[in-house]
Formats: sequence, structure tokens, C-alpha cells
Amino acid sequence: MTEQSLLEQLVEALRCMPGIGRKSAQRIAHQLLQRNRDGAKHLSEIMAEAMEKIGHCERCRTFTENKLCHHCENPKRDDSMICVVENPSDVDAIEEANYRGRYFVLLGHLSPLDGIGPDDLGLDEFQKTLENDELKEVILATNTTVEGEATAHFISEMVKAHGKQVSRIAHGVPMGGELEYVNSITIAHALDGRKAI
Amino acid sequence: MTEQSLLEQLVEALRCMPGIGRKSAQRIAHQLLQRNRDGAKHLSEIMAEAMEKIGHCERCRTFTENKLCHHCENPKRDDSMICVVENPSDVDAIEEANYRGRYFVLLGHLSPLDGIGPDDLGLDEFQKTLENDELKEVILATNTTVEGEATAHFISEMVKAHGKQVSRIAHGVPMGGELEYVNSITIAHALDGRKAI
Repeated sequence: MTEQSLLEQLVEALRCMPGIGRKSAQRIAHQLLQRNRDGAKHLSEIMAEAMEKIGHCERCRTFTENKLCHHCENPKRDDSMICVVENPSDVDAIEEANYRGRYFVLLGHLSPLDGIGPDDLGLDEFQKTLENDELKEVILATNTTVEGEATAHFISEMVKAHGKQVSRIAHGVPMGGELEYVNSITIAHALDGRKAI
Repeated sequence: MTEQSLLEQLVEALRCMPGIGRKSAQRIAHQLLQRNRDGAKHLSEIMAEAMEKIGHCERCRTFTENKLCHHCENPKRDDSMICVVENPSDVDAIEEANYRGRYFVLLGHLSPLDGIGPDDLGLDEFQKTLENDELKEVILATNTTVEGEATAHFISEMVKAHGKQVSRIAHGVPMGGELEYVNSITIAHALDGRKAI
């Protein structure tokens, strides 16, 4: 046998998904073939369509198959605040916390070594948003990595130059978290950011 | 927004895979859209083709897109022994242990309550295999569940009726396993199956 069987090709192809190694891919391929061929056919169709049609929202850059995503299209959302995040998945996380303002998705973070500058993050577009009079506050919710912090700093300078308010989401001990399992850097942040009660 | 967006449909569809819950599906969908659209398109094509074309080997019932799988087609394999397993994935596991005989895949186990009888496991076909003079030994490698053991017992009776040798793979402490982490049933099996050295 010189060429790969179709099953081996399927196992190989499944590994394009993050977190799926060889063993998981084998298990998924076997289970789908044995128990859920219809589900797999449906997945195959939706996946092809999604990869073809889903682009980025013209306003906030999150994923959508339309010109504008459903958050940007919604006239009831609060135009006075905009939350800046790194990835489309961050939008879902913040949405679940009942935030009702606007979003801006960077699709990455500043990384000069990789050649990712402000324009690659759509910050030229973002500049125009800052000229909007209705906007009062920019909330920075980039990740707490070195790059995320640097990106937040860069954007905060841009916002201040426009005389708008800018804030960073709070970092500290997670709700329901037990102190003994929280890492020391987080605790240091929580102590620094303590509030009088 | 009344209808599901394409992204939500993709997340839903990804959940047909075993072990993929809502959070993992979201992560996979976002990562594929952001980093690997070509991989996802390739996966979509291979998956559609695999679900359409992969059937079962006429001889051993494992997955193959051909009439016979590559194990059954291989004339160099040892015709004197046949290993009976429950699932096609078990074939891969045994293959890695350098077994070079034939296989027979039940695609399940006896389960009268679910209406799964001997014919559903292809045991009518297996009966014919037993008439082959070259075959000397049947190795039962069904799972160590109640159903797997019952299935092994049923097949062992069939094989004995044909006057062939029948064996069950050894159960005991796994190689490299530390005794203190092995469950008591396994240890009881290991004690029962002890060998003089």
C-alpha cells in the first residue's frame, strides 16, 4: 500500500483543528463513520459555506457573513462606549457579561517583530471612530500578555489625544476563585487595585 | 436577529464530533476562520468524500473505501490466526503491537436488550471463515465489559464447535503501570492469571 487510504486522509485533515491530535482525530473519524454520517455530511457543508462566506464586519471587524455584524446593526446598543478586544471570541465572552456598548476587534495585537503594526489591527479605521462625538469612553479589554498590555497602552495614547475617556478592565482575583490557587502576579494586581469600602 | 448566523450554525455543526462541547466548538470555529481557512476547506471536502465512499471490508468488516481493506488484501499476512475485535479502531491498536494475522470486526457487541444479535455482528459470515482449513486459532480481543465478555463467550462456543483453537487476550496489570494506581478488578485478574517463572 503506497498511497494513503481515505480514512487516513480524513484523520490527517481533522488535525487542522486546534487541540485535536492524532488519537483524537482517529476517534472522531471512527465515531462519525460508525454513528453519525449525516451529522458529518452536514458539518462538511456548513464548514465549506462558512469558510467561503464569513468575512469581517466593516465597522467592528468581528466575524460575520453580512456587511455589518448583528451587534453593529443593532440600533439599541450604547454608542457612547466602545470595547476594544483582540479576538472575535472575546466579543462573545464580554457579551455574556451583559455589556451593551459597541465593540472593536483588533484581530491580533501589536507585534513589531512579526511585522504587525497599528494598520494591521485596523487602528487607522479606529481613529475615524474616535472622531464620532457620541463616543465618550473606550474600554480596553486586550489580553494581559506583554503584547496585549503594549497594545492597550498604544491605543490609550490614541484615545487621550482625542480627549476621550479611556479605561482598562480590572485585573484581580476571579470571582469564586480561591486565593490559594491564584497566581502571585494576579494577587499583586489585586492588591495594587484595592478599593476602599 | 431571529435566525442563526452562519458562525453559530458552524459551532452547532462542529458539536456532532465526540468530545467537542460548545466551548471547544467555538474555539475551533474561530481558530479555523482566523488562521486556517484552507485547512478547513480541505477537511470539508475530505469529510464529504469519506462519509460518501467509506464502507466496510467484505471480509473483515473494518472501514475501507475498497472491496477489501489493505490487511485482507495483503497476501503476506498469517491466515492461520484471526483476531476478533469490536471496533475498527481496535484493529489499529492491535496492528501497532505487531500482530500479523487476520482480523474480524464485529462493529459492536451482543446486546439482546438493544436487539443486537449474532447476525448483526456478522457472525453468520464469520461461521464461513471458521470452515477455512488454514485457520488454526481465533484470538478474542473484545472489550472487558460485561457485553464484551458475553460476546467473547458466545464466539468461543462457535469456534469450539468447529474444533479450532480459541484464546482470549491476557488481562492484567498494564506494562509500565504502577500497582498502586491499578484498580482491584484488574489486580484480581492479574493474580488469577499468574504464571510460574
